[in-house]
Amino acid sequence: MKAVVLSAKWAPKSGFKLGPKDIDGKLTYLGSQVWKDPVVKVMDKAVPKIKPNEVLLKVKRCGICGSDVHMAQTYEDGYIYYPGLTAFPCTLGHEFSGEVVEVGTQAINKRTGKLFDKGEPVTVEEMWGCGECKPCCDGIPNHCERLQEIGFSVDGAYAEYVAAPAKLCWSLKKLEKRYKDIYKIGSLVEPTSVAYNAVIVRGGGIQPGENVVILGGGPIGLAATKILKTAGAQICIVSEPNEHRSALARKMGADYTINPQKENFVDKVKEYTDKEGAAIYLEETGLPQIVTDDIQNAIWECKAVNSTVVLVARSEQRMPVKGEYFQVRRARIIGSQGHSGHGIFFNVISCMASGMDMTPMITKEITLDQVPDNMKLLQTDRENCKISAKIS
Amino acid sequence: MKAVVLSAKWAPKSGFKLGPKDIDGKLTYLGSQVWKDPVVKVMDKAVPKIKPNEVLLKVKRCGICGSDVHMAQTYEDGYIYYPGLTAFPCTLGHEFSGEVVEVGTQAINKRTGKLFDKGEPVTVEEMWGCGECKPCCDGIPNHCERLQEIGFSVDGAYAEYVAAPAKLCWSLKKLEKRYKDIYKIGSLVEPTSVAYNAVIVRGGGIQPGENVVILGGGPIGLAATKILKTAGAQICIVSEPNEHRSALARKMGADYTINPQKENFVDKVKEYTDKEGAAIYLEETGLPQIVTDDIQNAIWECKAVNSTVVLVARSEQRMPVKGEYFQVRRARIIGSQGHSGHGIFFNVISCMASGMDMTPMITKEITLDQVPDNMKLLQTDRENCKISAKIS
Amino acid sequence: MKAVVLSAKWAPKSGFKLGPKDIDGKLTYLGSQVWKDPVVKVMDKAVPKIKPNEVLLKVKRCGICGSDVHMAQTYEDGYIYYPGLTAFPCTLGHEFSGEVVEVGTQAINKRTGKLFDKGEPVTVEEMWGCGECKPCCDGIPNHCERLQEIGFSVDGAYAEYVAAPAKLCWSLKKLEKRYKDIYKIGSLVEPTSVAYNAVIVRGGGIQPGENVVILGGGPIGLAATKILKTAGAQICIVSEPNEHRSALARKMGADYTINPQKENFVDKVKEYTDKEGAAIYLEETGLPQIVTDDIQNAIWECKAVNSTVVLVARSEQRMPVKGEYFQVRRARIIGSQGHSGHGIFFNVISCMASGMDMTPMITKEITLDQVPDNMKLLQTDRENCKISAKIS
Amino acid sequence: MKAVVLSAKWAPKSGFKLGPKDIDGKLTYLGSQVWKDPVVKVMDKAVPKIKPNEVLLKVKRCGICGSDVHMAQTYEDGYIYYPGLTAFPCTLGHEFSGEVVEVGTQAINKRTGKLFDKGEPVTVEEMWGCGECKPCCDGIPNHCERLQEIGFSVDGAYAEYVAAPAKLCWSLKKLEKRYKDIYKIGSLVEPTSVAYNAVIVRGGGIQPGENVVILGGGPIGLAATKILKTAGAQICIVSEPNEHRSALARKMGADYTINPQKENFVDKVKEYTDKEGAAIYLEETGLPQIVTDDIQNAIWECKAVNSTVVLVARSEQRMPVKGEYFQVRRARIIGSQGHSGHGIFFNVISCMASGMDMTPMITKEITLDQVPDNMKLLQTDRENCKISAKIS
Repeated sequence: MKAVVLSAKWAPKSGFKLGPKDIDGKLTYLGSQVWKDPVVKVMDKAVPKIKPNEVLLKVKRCGICGSDVHMAQTYEDGYIYYPGLTAFPCTLGHEFSGEVVEVGTQAINKRTGKLFDKGEPVTVEEMWGCGECKPCCDGIPNHCERLQEIGFSVDGAYAEYVAAPAKLCWSLKKLEKRYKDIYKIGSLVEPTSVAYNAVIVRGGGIQPGENVVILGGGPIGLAATKILKTAGAQICIVSEPNEHRSALARKMGADYTINPQKENFVDKVKEYTDKEGAAIYLEETGLPQIVTDDIQNAIWECKAVNSTVVLVARSEQRMPVKGEYFQVRRARIIGSQGHSGHGIFFNVISCMASGMDMTPMITKEITLDQVPDNMKLLQTDRENCKISAKIS
Repeated sequence: MKAVVLSAKWAPKSGFKLGPKDIDGKLTYLGSQVWKDPVVKVMDKAVPKIKPNEVLLKVKRCGICGSDVHMAQTYEDGYIYYPGLTAFPCTLGHEFSGEVVEVGTQAINKRTGKLFDKGEPVTVEEMWGCGECKPCCDGIPNHCERLQEIGFSVDGAYAEYVAAPAKLCWSLKKLEKRYKDIYKIGSLVEPTSVAYNAVIVRGGGIQPGENVVILGGGPIGLAATKILKTAGAQICIVSEPNEHRSALARKMGADYTINPQKENFVDKVKEYTDKEGAAIYLEETGLPQIVTDDIQNAIWECKAVNSTVVLVARSEQRMPVKGEYFQVRRARIIGSQGHSGHGIFFNVISCMASGMDMTPMITKEITLDQVPDNMKLLQTDRENCKISAKIS
Repeated sequence: MKAVVLSAKWAPKSGFKLGPKDIDGKLTYLGSQVWKDPVVKVMDKAVPKIKPNEVLLKVKRCGICGSDVHMAQTYEDGYIYYPGLTAFPCTLGHEFSGEVVEVGTQAINKRTGKLFDKGEPVTVEEMWGCGECKPCCDGIPNHCERLQEIGFSVDGAYAEYVAAPAKLCWSLKKLEKRYKDIYKIGSLVEPTSVAYNAVIVRGGGIQPGENVVILGGGPIGLAATKILKTAGAQICIVSEPNEHRSALARKMGADYTINPQKENFVDKVKEYTDKEGAAIYLEETGLPQIVTDDIQNAIWECKAVNSTVVLVARSEQRMPVKGEYFQVRRARIIGSQGHSGHGIFFNVISCMASGMDMTPMITKEITLDQVPDNMKLLQTDRENCKISAKIS
Repeated sequence: MKAVVLSAKWAPKSGFKLGPKDIDGKLTYLGSQVWKDPVVKVMDKAVPKIKPNEVLLKVKRCGICGSDVHMAQTYEDGYIYYPGLTAFPCTLGHEFSGEVVEVGTQAINKRTGKLFDKGEPVTVEEMWGCGECKPCCDGIPNHCERLQEIGFSVDGAYAEYVAAPAKLCWSLKKLEKRYKDIYKIGSLVEPTSVAYNAVIVRGGGIQPGENVVILGGGPIGLAATKILKTAGAQICIVSEPNEHRSALARKMGADYTINPQKENFVDKVKEYTDKEGAAIYLEETGLPQIVTDDIQNAIWECKAVNSTVVLVARSEQRMPVKGEYFQVRRARIIGSQGHSGHGIFFNVISCMASGMDMTPMITKEITLDQVPDNMKLLQTDRENCKISAKIS
């Protein structure tokens, strides 16, 4: 079968030490410290064999994520951008949907409580918890101590077929009533779930009628926009310098957009909310040294107490937090990572079933063969949001 | 000024003892034990004088509530239906909106943080906490130990003017952008807040994509329907035998309605939710001996864990609860009363400002003079939902 | 090896239908409908073989639970009392501690993140979630759709050796600092976890200084007493007719005990709490038709709002709930089942490590051979609380 | 009557502008920008007159708070240290207890629901919410938009008599059973409530068995230590360089203390908790630029997820937060201010009634006349914790 595979050289930087879960020459939790000279190619690979608790999926759709781009993008010294868990060579692709074509002897469909039937349409969680460590046993599998990630450390879905544990598969069946192409929207469940975890599960959601502010109009920010309008936000403001993304934000439900390079963020938040402020501020820019003051000054100058700042974008920069503002305004800062457990995938699919249509985020549709070029395109292109590969 | 006043005879039933907060001949917390032969009349009364922390409102709209009906409705022995706090004679009317026409020297507008301006459009909380007892100090004013209620124990808003404490007034200003008649929708803030308290504050709300079931298509049930769809409910089912109310429920956003007199409630919940069940079951029928089994059997036979049963309708009947069902399904039962505090009025107005239009609930518009007749009409009429008096 | 095995006849009552997860002749979720003429014997059995994700434990201690008693106790028609999941013949025993003597190739110790070492002291969760169904994936394994239970449907710990999945084992290592016999107290982790789940996880715990009332002085009630005093309860009242158990309740931290057969429960709660009432009422009697009024009248007559009634004892009887009391007092009823997940076992062991000594609950120590006789004794004896078998 | 009064010159720094709630020459929310050359004297003043909703208290005890010290302490340019709400001249003193000697006509005792009786022992909240603004109406009075503070902007309790609103008074009656001198411990309710708000209300408390780390052994840190041990903390670690305070921390229940100037904080947290880490980290040093890395590195290197960092000490410095650590460890940062509402005073008194004895924090007892000298002493003395004036 065809598959988009990333290979790279294991060339640890000086000073790098193998972590307790790293495997020499093969797997690391600190990708950018180790992997050099990545090559992405469409290759021919064997169809995966499944274990008893797995299903084999014929992949239908797979979207390109920023992480995919960063795994193949390098600094001047040849090291990859992506700093996280990686094991190369690896078939990439983790935002996907597919159809069950083979069923392990213990592969239960959560929708029916019975073995999967062939033909069931599903999407799959990206984070693969071990099910055995303390966080997994406590019900927080995306903080698994021995996490694997499909498309990063196990073979992913830019391929004609992919194997996945049944427990991580979620049926897309209920989307059939509303959508013609359930696989298209189904491939957006994973990124939408990252946003849902951030604003609903970790951020605690909103009470209908509260305001929200999203900083950054990337896919997670846009998904959060749609989710929070679905949850009854009175006013949703998206701050984003790129005009294409701002337009898309409005399409996804934003009541107002701010161009933080041309407008004063705090003034605009005050204006648009009549100084009420917001219940949730979602940091999705990855530029905390720039936006932290914007956020905390807005909290300080507006009237709302109990604001929650949710950090979803990754950054190695520090946030210069003024604790006093969080004391006087009864506010808080919350870290959010990934998406697993807590019914997140299930609820996201249910939202979609009742009309939360995320497909406007898909700005371009391609074939499997076009994935490597489009991963390159996204290194510079800011006009596209989600590029989606139609695989079968 | 004109006012609709209810008078009745203080005629305590044998065995009735004055409670600690009752006032002989004047006020009781157990209306139906004391008041006989009620008479409702349009009378001429003096315009109220305001205290320093109050405003005088020119009343614009006031809706008829079931409580109004029950205060004037009697059993065969002449005693009134309404069992709660009452002090007669009293001007009725507590679901209202009006315009500030006189401002006490300490009457602060929460919208601006300054004294009210004349002309500010407002609605008013119905439950008047004392601000001094332990529940009030703990932030739960609708469980005040010395509660007063406008339209029940202090003069209400079926009148040309009404006085109200500034702290219980909430500005309707932000409704101007969307609605031509802000006083019409503004008079629905109070009943909508009862529903909001029940399903959002007390019931804990939902995560977007969860299902809900409303038992009873009265005003609170319909308001809850709209609120929960606004909050992102996937499937909202309303169970209601009256066809007019069912039609109205669908208009307010219900995805399905059940006629529990003709259809099997549990079967229909299973069918419509694909056996998923619901996160919230709202009991708004007042018939717990009938619907408790429906609710707990639906919880038992569907798959959802963590369901919450919210009790909002009052009833003296007992609920025959099967505790085991609540254990096995990790479920709970929660009592909800009234609406005050917790930003409820503010959030309801914000929801309305962003499009949560409750006005389809108003099925008839009348004048102040027509209030007594329409209170009588509602003793038997099941086709109207909310009858709204346009007062000025 | 020696093992205490229960055998019984598969003799379904007329009308019994195999449930979807029942196995004809072998396993049912409705024990009392099927099993007849139970026989409990000490037998010789083979030492269990372990799977890769399991450990073999040399059992040190195993306590007798009421469920054990009810599996061997019969109605006049010969059917067993115990109504739940059972698969006979089965080695009983599920409240136990033991030492790791053999380690599967994937059997990770959550304490170290590495494979178990031989000699590690552990206790084991009783509820074995499948890890694959929706409740398991959502982090609620004790509501697993395909639950197994050790000592009920898989061989338990009244035996010299027992096999257990590593993910359900919790190290007792940290108890070594404080306790001489860590296996004795370690065998109480399981019943203590049932109480911890009820009052802390499901009941929401208390804020230090709040009051609590426990109805029923059985092992779960006594464990809850100790847990809630550990959590900072101001006043803990235990209602229990048996004088031995009342004395034990006071030993476990109860500030007051009520004999509900001789004293007026509501009056005593009012007296002991100065009419404050309680934040938590734990129903552990299994007699809801008797105690529901006691509880709801206490809630009604005391001043506390926000009381939580936690149902932990199983009963087929209905609770005659007065919804109005729960509305006026802002109260709620919560079902609690079992103990798994949520860090419960870990936290209970940590509590014990810092001084929460549950061993006074053990009123008698026996050998493995004496288990069958003592199971019989407990059918009538009300003076013992927990009988603990010292196995090796 | 005698009273300790602070006078100072209104001398706004250049650039200072009157805020919306400031009063020229009299009151500011930014003390250190305005007040110069403070003088503290024991003076003779008239006994206060009470309003209908107030009581007059004969003051029994009043403790010296760091804020008192900072109001009288100046930078080289003569401006006071204390940066907050101040209106001079003002009688200082806000950590106090007293006896009701005169009762306003509407002054209700929350303990009885009736007018106060003379002789009732009480303590008083320091933060006086207006009861009219949105935060007050929402149940968050310590975030009142027009807050007054006793001992800062209204006359306080270093005086023989003080007037206070009944709604802010909390009875100490229930302390009589356990304590000989209820006024001594009663004067500690206010600072204990600041800690209770921080770790229990804002920080969310702990589940029994979880670990906690307190940074800073000042009065709030010590109170938090005792509260969290009362709440069932397994291991409580206090980090504090001063040996006297460390010893006091151990006396208040700390299991371990760290001297962060001599020991490695992160290593010690790992050692004492066996790398488990903590559920709560309380920042009480006021030195966020120093301790933020300690806290976030401990969170990073230990195993616990879901840690909460509570900020209670005020500081104008920024915290250099690494957001990624809070994402990977599912952690959060929460601001906490003051203490009002939410039953906090009531619960603290209840905790004391059941044995949470805070009096070891009082290291010196003085007379009213000695207050000015001891306020000066505390500018440099680090050996005393709480100095308590016995006033009558």
